[in-house]
Amino acid sequence: MMDISHSNLLEMEKPYRNTLINSLPGLKCLQMVGTMSENGHSNLGLFNSIFHVGSDPALLGMILRPKSTDHATLSNIERTGFYTFNNVLEGFIAQAHQTSARYPAGFSEFVECGFTESFLGGFEAPFVAESTIKIALTLQEVLPIKINGTTLVIGKITHVHLPDNLVAKDGYVDHFKAGTLTVAGLDSYFAPRPVARFKYAKANQSVQEL
Amino acid sequence: MMDISHSNLLEMEKPYRNTLINSLPGLKCLQMVGTMSENGHSNLGLFNSIFHVGSDPALLGMILRPKSTDHATLSNIERTGFYTFNNVLEGFIAQAHQTSARYPAGFSEFVECGFTESFLGGFEAPFVAESTIKIALTLQEVLPIKINGTTLVIGKITHVHLPDNLVAKDGYVDHFKAGTLTVAGLDSYFAPRPVARFKYAKANQSVQEL
Repeated sequence: MMDISHSNLLEMEKPYRNTLINSLPGLKCLQMVGTMSENGHSNLGLFNSIFHVGSDPALLGMILRPKSTDHATLSNIERTGFYTFNNVLEGFIAQAHQTSARYPAGFSEFVECGFTESFLGGFEAPFVAESTIKIALTLQEVLPIKINGTTLVIGKITHVHLPDNLVAKDGYVDHFKAGTLTVAGLDSYFAPRPVARFKYAKANQSVQEL
Repeated sequence: MMDISHSNLLEMEKPYRNTLINSLPGLKCLQMVGTMSENGHSNLGLFNSIFHVGSDPALLGMILRPKSTDHATLSNIERTGFYTFNNVLEGFIAQAHQTSARYPAGFSEFVECGFTESFLGGFEAPFVAESTIKIALTLQEVLPIKINGTTLVIGKITHVHLPDNLVAKDGYVDHFKAGTLTVAGLDSYFAPRPVARFKYAKANQSVQEL
């Protein structure tokens, strides 16, 4: 058994701690985030601190590191107010990982990593044509997280593009069929293997499969 | 192709929209959160809006719905300052789903759903003995999200308990070996199937597997 105390964490070498802490909480929501740079170039970044904030209004949150390290994504979102989430598939996982490299300003990760820009429904940020689920977001709130200088960005879902056959009658989006990948840490990618879907749990009855 | 506009979203029936929006962003980080209630009972809840905030200090975030709906978890965290994250495994997935039912105050989900409370290293919140990865968190920040009345809770990792063989030489925690599950929406559980682990991406070289 490994028993890691707070002082053990403080004493660890930085790369070891980064890898440990990033991979510790489990499998994470993975999206390529599309934005427009000031110079008119499109920008694509890989993010995994993405989470549900609410359904009505439909809100998604994302944690971004300080501006210097997270490419141009945060400044592009703040300036334009628009961005897209695009799911990552097994067929292009190496290209998607490559979008996490630091390209100099003026280079588009779409071009450098081999993705196709797609502008849909007049939305002002680029989607990834190769993704099966494309989400348009409009910036709602930017909350600074003082404790470590990161930023929480909350966006409202204003458009969704996906094939009909991915959405069940009750609204459930099938990520197994969609081919959506998930990530542990910053570099280890997994596909989902279905285990079970259950009905809404109630205190006075046992769990039932849906 | 399904093309869902913002006005389509607004017109949807509530259960359909809830299911759609909850499942839309993909696979999420799933944890059972252990706390202590005021009456001395232990409390266990299931959460999936959990995310990495930083590695130094080691911080994890979690979104909680308004107090009335999220059982007692939020008030217990605010009162005591301590809580635990415990990973969900395939072998007890039905029991874990059952912890999302609303039990009246005075009932412990540990007892009702068949989990074993474990108090480790003098930490004041209960761990789930059946989980392979157990994380102790100390409350750092409570940020109200005004746009929809939810709350962002940030905790510092102050202790970690897990078997030695889950941690690689570089600090990477192996969730495939650990048996950690992930969830899409509120009710559909998946196990991870390994696809690839890549080296840190650099702009001037192609992606390499680790």
